[in-house]
Parts: sequence; C-alpha cells; structure tokens
Amino acid sequence: MMLQHIDKTERLSRVVVHHGIAYFSGLTADDKQEDTRGQTAQILAKADLYLERIGSNRASIISAMIWLRDIGDFDQMNLAWVDWIDKSAPPARATVEAKLGLPEILVEIQFTVAIPD
Amino acid sequence: MMLQHIDKTERLSRVVVHHGIAYFSGLTADDKQEDTRGQTAQILAKADLYLERIGSNRASIISAMIWLRDIGDFDQMNLAWVDWIDKSAPPARATVEAKLGLPEILVEIQFTVAIPD
Amino acid sequence: MMLQHIDKTERLSRVVVHHGIAYFSGLTADDKQEDTRGQTAQILAKADLYLERIGSNRASIISAMIWLRDIGDFDQMNLAWVDWIDKSAPPARATVEAKLGLPEILVEIQFTVAIPD
Repeated sequence: MMLQHIDKTERLSRVVVHHGIAYFSGLTADDKQEDTRGQTAQILAKADLYLERIGSNRASIISAMIWLRDIGDFDQMNLAWVDWIDKSAPPARATVEAKLGLPEILVEIQFTVAIPD
Repeated sequence: MMLQHIDKTERLSRVVVHHGIAYFSGLTADDKQEDTRGQTAQILAKADLYLERIGSNRASIISAMIWLRDIGDFDQMNLAWVDWIDKSAPPARATVEAKLGLPEILVEIQFTVAIPD
Repeated sequence: MMLQHIDKTERLSRVVVHHGIAYFSGLTADDKQEDTRGQTAQILAKADLYLERIGSNRASIISAMIWLRDIGDFDQMNLAWVDWIDKSAPPARATVEAKLGLPEILVEIQFTVAIPD
C-alpha cells in the first residue's frame, strides 16, 4: 500500500503515512477541563504515543501547526511546548488563533513527522 | 521540470505537483448561494476533477485542511464529507474556523494528495 | 542527518529541510509599523534570504499559507505578492483571516519549498 492509515474513524485517519512522512490530524486534549497549558501537555503526550507507533520520535518532527482559541494563551502553550520538544531539533512552527471544533477546546496541534529509515 | 503547475493564475497555481505529491490551493465553491453542506459538496466535486487530471483518486488523499466561516457548521460540512471520502482510506484532517476571502464563502478545503506510481 | 535545522530558537527552527523539501516556520515582518502591503514585502524579502541559504529560489516554492489579521487587506497583500512571485511558477496557496502572535502583526506567511537537485 502506498498510504498507511492509523486509527481510522468514519471521517479521518489520526495519522496517514506516505513515503516516510507521517501526516497527523489535528490533535486535541481528552480532558477539556484543563487550561491551555494542561491541554497542550495532553496533546504532546498523545503525540508521543503516535510517534512511538510509527517508529519515530520528537527529534524527527518536521513541522507543527498550532491553533489557540485565544492567542493570549501563547505563553501558556509555550510553557508545555518547550518542556517537551527536543531542543537540538526543534520543528518549524506556526501559531495562530482560531475557534476550534468545540468551545472547550483551547488548543489543537497538527504535526508532520519524518520516519527514520 | 521538478514542479508541475496546474491552472495557473497571476497569484497561484490551483495544484502544484512535486515528486509524486500534489499540493492543492484552497478550493471554494463556485455557487456561493448554497449553504455549507452544498458548498462542501461543490468543493469535493471540484476536487474530483483535479484528482482525475493528476491521475490520482480519493483513496490517495493524504490530508485535508478545512476552514469553516462558522465552526457551528461542522456537522453540515461533515454530511457532505462522509458521503464523499473513501472510507477505507480517510485522510488526516484538521478543521478550524476562519473568515475566508469573501463573506459568502462558508467553507474552504485544501488537499495534499499522493499520486499513485 | 535526516533533518537539517536552520536558525533554531528554543521553540522552533525557522526552516527544517527533509529529503529535498524545506518547511518554513510562519514568517512575519520585523518592522511592524508598516501596513499589510509593507509587512508582506518585508516577509517576502526575508523569504528570499532563506531561499538563497537553502539553495532554492522563488520558482521552486511549492505552496504558501497566508494569514491576514484582517481579510479585508487581501488586495493589499496581493499587491506585494504579485510583484514578488515567479509568474511562470506560482505556488499553491490558501489565505484566511486569523489573529496572529501580536496585535501589530498584520500578515504571516508559511512556505513549503522544493530544493533543486
């Protein structure tokens, strides 16, 4: 198969792998009672699980698209982010404000990841 | 040529192909009188035409970025979406709210697509 | 190294190169006193510097994601854009409205670029 689909729902795959690159769907936190820092930490923990499943790692993340419900939470998100990324190999990144799928979703992150040969 | 450009305007190409991957511009509906479900269906019909032109198909879509003018139309968009995608091979996806190029544009979708060898 | 990281900060790399494709972080203008046309021109001048550093050029840009703080500035952004792009090889593109990292940031652009062999 040219494409590999991971965790399919009727609408999307959580991850699609093509020629050594993994394209993630936007990830959100499961516990939406937490604040932006907490939700970001949950998303990054979830990303770790997918990174392991596809045989990759934090240092192989190519890029990250980050949406914040309130761009004023930029610093809160970054607190969780800088704790998590591999500082020797930080991804390209863009962060913008957007309303997300549910009002209680404060942050959503979409990764593009290289899979080591 | 390393890059192939399809339907060039003075600002953009509707599709750019590079090494077996087609990068689409954001697609919008031609008839903007329709509601979000109708505009989504128009976009997906337009995507079919480009998929055919590049020798690809719905099962080879890697990812889709979806912008809704009103995130409250999420379910309406999904009605058209689930009717259209290949359920054995759903793409990665993210959906966020954003104001788009014209007030009457209710939905815009940008695809990244693999081209079968 | 599978990935090459250019201009690393503690949060991100300005550009990450993987298998002949350069993934840029969102670029913004340094002088945020300028209007949207001026900020766009600054961003594109900055892009030129990175294109040169990675051994690429305007004709090899695959796609561009453009965020405007006010979608009403669409035409202003385009004035700078059409002056800059290689009209024989325009990238795929999407443009949406979003609040960006600081209130005075009126436009942000993220490029994906092929590197000629």
